[in-house]
Amino acid sequence: MKKYNWEDWEKAYDAGKVIFSTWKDLSFFRINKDFKAYPVGTFFNESLFVRGYPSIPRIYVLKTGLIRYLSYPFYAEEKIEGYNVRLVKIGKDILAFTRRGYVCPFATDRWEDFLPTIPNFLNKYPDFVICCEVAGPENPFVSEWPPYLKRDIHFFVFDFAQKGTGEFLPGSRKINLLQKFKLNHPEISGPFHPEKDYEKIKDLIRRYHREGREGLVFKPEEKGTRVKYVTPYSNLTDLKVVFPYLGEVDPHFISLRLIRLLLNLYEFEEFKDEVYKTLGTNLFEEALKSIKEKKVFDEVFRVRFKNLENYHALLAHFKQARVNIEIIKQSWENGYFLVEFKKIYPRATQFWGQKLEGWGEVD
Amino acid sequence: MKKYNWEDWEKAYDAGKVIFSTWKDLSFFRINKDFKAYPVGTFFNESLFVRGYPSIPRIYVLKTGLIRYLSYPFYAEEKIEGYNVRLVKIGKDILAFTRRGYVCPFATDRWEDFLPTIPNFLNKYPDFVICCEVAGPENPFVSEWPPYLKRDIHFFVFDFAQKGTGEFLPGSRKINLLQKFKLNHPEISGPFHPEKDYEKIKDLIRRYHREGREGLVFKPEEKGTRVKYVTPYSNLTDLKVVFPYLGEVDPHFISLRLIRLLLNLYEFEEFKDEVYKTLGTNLFEEALKSIKEKKVFDEVFRVRFKNLENYHALLAHFKQARVNIEIIKQSWENGYFLVEFKKIYPRATQFWGQKLEGWGEVD
Repeated sequence: MKKYNWEDWEKAYDAGKVIFSTWKDLSFFRINKDFKAYPVGTFFNESLFVRGYPSIPRIYVLKTGLIRYLSYPFYAEEKIEGYNVRLVKIGKDILAFTRRGYVCPFATDRWEDFLPTIPNFLNKYPDFVICCEVAGPENPFVSEWPPYLKRDIHFFVFDFAQKGTGEFLPGSRKINLLQKFKLNHPEISGPFHPEKDYEKIKDLIRRYHREGREGLVFKPEEKGTRVKYVTPYSNLTDLKVVFPYLGEVDPHFISLRLIRLLLNLYEFEEFKDEVYKTLGTNLFEEALKSIKEKKVFDEVFRVRFKNLENYHALLAHFKQARVNIEIIKQSWENGYFLVEFKKIYPRATQFWGQKLEGWGEVD
Repeated sequence: MKKYNWEDWEKAYDAGKVIFSTWKDLSFFRINKDFKAYPVGTFFNESLFVRGYPSIPRIYVLKTGLIRYLSYPFYAEEKIEGYNVRLVKIGKDILAFTRRGYVCPFATDRWEDFLPTIPNFLNKYPDFVICCEVAGPENPFVSEWPPYLKRDIHFFVFDFAQKGTGEFLPGSRKINLLQKFKLNHPEISGPFHPEKDYEKIKDLIRRYHREGREGLVFKPEEKGTRVKYVTPYSNLTDLKVVFPYLGEVDPHFISLRLIRLLLNLYEFEEFKDEVYKTLGTNLFEEALKSIKEKKVFDEVFRVRFKNLENYHALLAHFKQARVNIEIIKQSWENGYFLVEFKKIYPRATQFWGQKLEGWGEVD
């Protein structure tokens, strides 16, 4: 592995930027904070090096943003509301790593239900990292999902990256492999031209907004900058879902969504009436209900596992990450272990509790 | 002056917490950052010590907050939307000091138009600091004002503090002096009991909201904690006025107003329909107009001065504070020098400009 020099890594390790991690027999290092050119979530050991999935800059205005960053040909891929994992073949195992470089016990347990051709694929291409979104109503981390997913979860493959360099496969080759191996993937449109196809891309956003989809990621056919853009629907839903849990989430989250929403309206005047009509409800209705009813702020999640060992690994992960959970129900059903659990949110409880109890604050 | 020991002040001066300031022949030190028990805006020299006006904690819920902090008897004073100055007699002059301890050339120029009995008052009570709000459509600093003020400004006296200790005069004595000297002041209601008069205080907030007033400051008759509470009107208007100028103002400003508004609705369900109906417009309409029309973000202010020297001091103050202004009109009218000027907002221009030009951001 020529990709790194050990002296640098030792320094990073001493500074707490690199963390020693294990998963069963596997041990590896995980980058916890962007370090040199390596993004958070990069992980490696003596025989493996996988780069973290890079952050994709957001554009606020399509008209000017597409021209600034893209040229013909590029693709517009549906951005799925879920969480990002990378499937990697390590020895005989295929493991799912989260954005931060942890092994995700849940995605590791479930990928084969949704991507059954992956073992063949990785036998043929063992040096590929399969980047996908895990999304759906029954996942342990995210409270939003595409509305067309009505139960459980699904995996959406959106990139193949090389181990080591992290280089992505070109668009057309990716599409080819997705089809050949029948891998579930986000809707891909294009190829597009950033100026000539502006109206087509606006139409996509119009449809995605109506259908409750999150947005688009624009990817050049070859190497180059990728950018993303989200629908008003996504911004409105984020507001609804997060406002009750302020305290857990930085209040800045709210302002950011409102800024994005304003710039949605700047470019899509036709959404103005709808946004004006629903904004109050989206912002306040859930939060009002919560602060009226709850003493302790919590959120219910449902998941299904095939393998109890993975379920226990998820519990251990929550414990290590100091996520306080309470199990509501567990049962075997059609070969799956179904779990319903609550995450307890002490910071949201304190955030709203103090205000409701009449404590004053200097702001 | 036993109030402070010079060694401490020297340290604070070296740390940049105390700033040397002048106004004509007067020189003094000004506390620039809270220092020990002294709030920002405290100022002093060898013969004078005036404490900064203390921050008043905000409560988000009247029902629990009033009981927590107040007991019978306390007063509910109208909170005026404007800026806080302290009038102080120094030698033969009566000068207005801002919240941060600068001499305010504008308020110093104009107080005698609105508080003509102050010279008599301060001859009788030279050790009193007169705390007042300067508010109205023609002030150089604040873009909001009570809607019942249709032109120019007004001064509202809300406290008398002792030089040196900063101690406030008890409520009934204050009311007595305000009346005796016919000093304009915010509406004062009470005395109240925090539990028995909860409904009366809610009624005040209902009326203030309808009348477009900012809110209430609750002050115990004697010493003790003061707290404040603002109307949904004030929160909605803050959102409208500030959203276009994000970049100049921290986006956190927006989230804070929304949190306050949610807790308004928690306690005043009757405002829900109105808030839901107007929130979108309040948040986005002005900002949309600005980003569509403006290349450079600016804001127009109008002021009138009696004394050109004070006007020039205001210009010097803007220059020193790096506020970029552009004079639009100046003319003498009925003994007043009328000035219309623009503040140019480079940070807001950049904040929106970058997004409009399609620049991407990682957030």
